[in-house]
Amino acid sequence: MKKELTIVKVGGAVVEDETQLSRLLHDFIAIQGPKILVHGGGRRATKIAERLGIETKMVEGRRITDADMLEVVTMVYGGLVNKHVVACLQAQGADAIGLTGADADIIRSVKRPPVALGSHLSPPTSHLIDFGFVGDVKKANSIKIAHFIDAGMIPVIAPLTHDGQGNMLNTNADTMASETATALAELYDVTLVFAFEKPGVLSNPDDDTSVISTITASDFERLKADGTISGGMLPKISNALAAIQKGVKRVVITSAQAIGKSGGTTIKA
Amino acid sequence: MKKELTIVKVGGAVVEDETQLSRLLHDFIAIQGPKILVHGGGRRATKIAERLGIETKMVEGRRITDADMLEVVTMVYGGLVNKHVVACLQAQGADAIGLTGADADIIRSVKRPPVALGSHLSPPTSHLIDFGFVGDVKKANSIKIAHFIDAGMIPVIAPLTHDGQGNMLNTNADTMASETATALAELYDVTLVFAFEKPGVLSNPDDDTSVISTITASDFERLKADGTISGGMLPKISNALAAIQKGVKRVVITSAQAIGKSGGTTIKA
Repeated sequence: MKKELTIVKVGGAVVEDETQLSRLLHDFIAIQGPKILVHGGGRRATKIAERLGIETKMVEGRRITDADMLEVVTMVYGGLVNKHVVACLQAQGADAIGLTGADADIIRSVKRPPVALGSHLSPPTSHLIDFGFVGDVKKANSIKIAHFIDAGMIPVIAPLTHDGQGNMLNTNADTMASETATALAELYDVTLVFAFEKPGVLSNPDDDTSVISTITASDFERLKADGTISGGMLPKISNALAAIQKGVKRVVITSAQAIGKSGGTTIKA
Repeated sequence: MKKELTIVKVGGAVVEDETQLSRLLHDFIAIQGPKILVHGGGRRATKIAERLGIETKMVEGRRITDADMLEVVTMVYGGLVNKHVVACLQAQGADAIGLTGADADIIRSVKRPPVALGSHLSPPTSHLIDFGFVGDVKKANSIKIAHFIDAGMIPVIAPLTHDGQGNMLNTNADTMASETATALAELYDVTLVFAFEKPGVLSNPDDDTSVISTITASDFERLKADGTISGGMLPKISNALAAIQKGVKRVVITSAQAIGKSGGTTIKA
């Protein structure tokens, strides 16, 4: 029988608020057994970039990462946010270790080639967008990550990878979490928790009590088609379904205030 | 018989220049056996601080680290510089892992209390200076650091520690290197190399061929008294002597272009 492993992904809004972060880390530590925290930090990166006079450009909700912005996200995700979280966990007696994909080569990626956008519009307006120094994960190294866990450490993973050629790459934190979960499913019974500001996937975005308790792959197609699920929830659920289909035991989308508790939306194959 | 371990400390001027860094990392990788790299990054921190509108205040060559500056050094040392060095080492096939003192709790420190400065001046003008969020190392955890080495990894250590209460602290990179060397001397035959822009300790600062090949504790007293050694070399040699006196096998102060080679200044007890 495999051991249990819990991977919690928490977004920037939570890690950037001291009160919310403190509560989250307390609840995170209370989760029994081996665990991993994957964090974001986009709002902080945008603020620091602004102070440095670097413009933040977003296309379809995704950040364009030019050379200057890559420096900002490397500083903010890998330094400012990651080390703060690690120091706070250590202060509570949890043996955290901050990692990017480059550290111990745990997650490699390839620089995303320019992608066609707008082809789904009517009329189609396909044009190529270069997202810059953005990495699409090739593989998370389960043996390497498990090494830290087996030594009793708690990996705290920043949304940065490397290409194996000396370049750091900006990488979506949800994707980091689901790729890490998928890789570690070979070795552990993995529960993947996406913690964010809402109590789960809502059938009515204005009603926090309208949490959909379970979403299967076929539910997802239906909810997408009828417009119930849209925007930023689409890639989150796609990531969740991909993880389930690749052997992750359980995926939950829930509030940062409810990790380790029941509730939220469970994603099923 | 203990295994050999080489710890190289390299300053900001080298890590911030791509050509020098690339050469240094090549030479570093060529050193046989287990190794650790400790890096600085002060010039880069000063530049980023300036762009953020944060003033850099130095007293007797040491940085005053207020809350804003602590964020800058955490970003720059722990994120920008550290991850760049790690990615470059990984690109050359070296299994680097970036660490601050907080990561896996490898180096704890205490916040430096305000210190009296100027008492050595004539007339004495003693007044208290608060260096802010600066950490004086309590102890480097040799077991924890050795764990990474035994797993075949190369720790790349940024000059940041934590106080165990959730705060990161800015810490002198030379001190980080000598404290790490001292702690690991329990487990390894440690060679500590301080790599900087000069070929060693010079008897004439304007003549790069005037390298003093050996300095003992009594030489140091004499060279200090006659003014041959002054300024930034004083704490470097003090750190080196402290390391030798605490069991480090060999300490060399040499050029970044000469690590792993003969030459430079050897510090003896």
